[in-house]
Amino acid sequence: MVILGIDPGYAIVGYGVVESNTIKFRPIEFGAVTTAAKIPFTERLGKIYENVSFLIDKYHPDAMSIEKLYFNTNTTTAIDVAQARGVIILAAQQKGVPVYEYTPLQVKQSVTGYGRAEKHQVMDMVKHMLSLQAAPKLDDTADALALAICHGHYAGSSYGKLKLEGKI
Amino acid sequence: MVILGIDPGYAIVGYGVVESNTIKFRPIEFGAVTTAAKIPFTERLGKIYENVSFLIDKYHPDAMSIEKLYFNTNTTTAIDVAQARGVIILAAQQKGVPVYEYTPLQVKQSVTGYGRAEKHQVMDMVKHMLSLQAAPKLDDTADALALAICHGHYAGSSYGKLKLEGKI
Repeated sequence: MVILGIDPGYAIVGYGVVESNTIKFRPIEFGAVTTAAKIPFTERLGKIYENVSFLIDKYHPDAMSIEKLYFNTNTTTAIDVAQARGVIILAAQQKGVPVYEYTPLQVKQSVTGYGRAEKHQVMDMVKHMLSLQAAPKLDDTADALALAICHGHYAGSSYGKLKLEGKI
Repeated sequence: MVILGIDPGYAIVGYGVVESNTIKFRPIEFGAVTTAAKIPFTERLGKIYENVSFLIDKYHPDAMSIEKLYFNTNTTTAIDVAQARGVIILAAQQKGVPVYEYTPLQVKQSVTGYGRAEKHQVMDMVKHMLSLQAAPKLDDTADALALAICHGHYAGSSYGKLKLEGKI
């Protein structure tokens, strides 16, 4: 199956398209959609939606795996991240791609075997599991790839189940 | 000018389409888009986007006036409201409708002249200013109409200005 992992944001949206046969993973494309702070917020949302729709049209993923949002100290940022996440989910919904969400803890656990792993440990494991020459430049891209791998693990361990745990 | 007021939410999205010539207001259509809790969240977002897009295609508003979000105690709800607000703003952006946001305080101040007015006072003034036979059934619809009126006031007082304060 092809999985589109997404690390949601409004300035940087990390993405990673990964083919998974449960135990093996192959990277197809990964990178980030970035939007400039100087353009109006409405247009930033538009650009994110268009780019995610484009990726879905290009790779026809079987699932989108996206990070579950929590609130931290900066609530203004969190509102804008949530608004961006809304248009990303909408793009999937409109193309019939089921959306699954995972917490950072689930992702770390799935990729490194340890829920409290450091960022660089996650990045190293992503690089290793996908046989990448070098780790992705951006944390956001590495996180998106980790989300795709995480869903591959969950989907693999839930064969035959009608609905995976994280489906929204 | 025609203004589409929106009270954002994911279970209830209040809307109010109002024609404004700065001092006079005429209601065109008002109501609410509702989504059932039993359908998946992704589909709720899809329904909200489709209904808001439909209203924009039907009335070609000159502006969307939407409530600015703040965080209160229930952060899980706030994330979902923000995600819904993202797809509402996207619908406007895609149709070339400029989006303006106002705080509850600005809306109350604009409609009742008093920033700390009670909900029923806002509803009474909305009913009076739009010459409605009865107040709207839902608070969300009344709030949407109040947002449209608020933008009419701001737009009227800013004639000739290139950009209104609340534009996002």
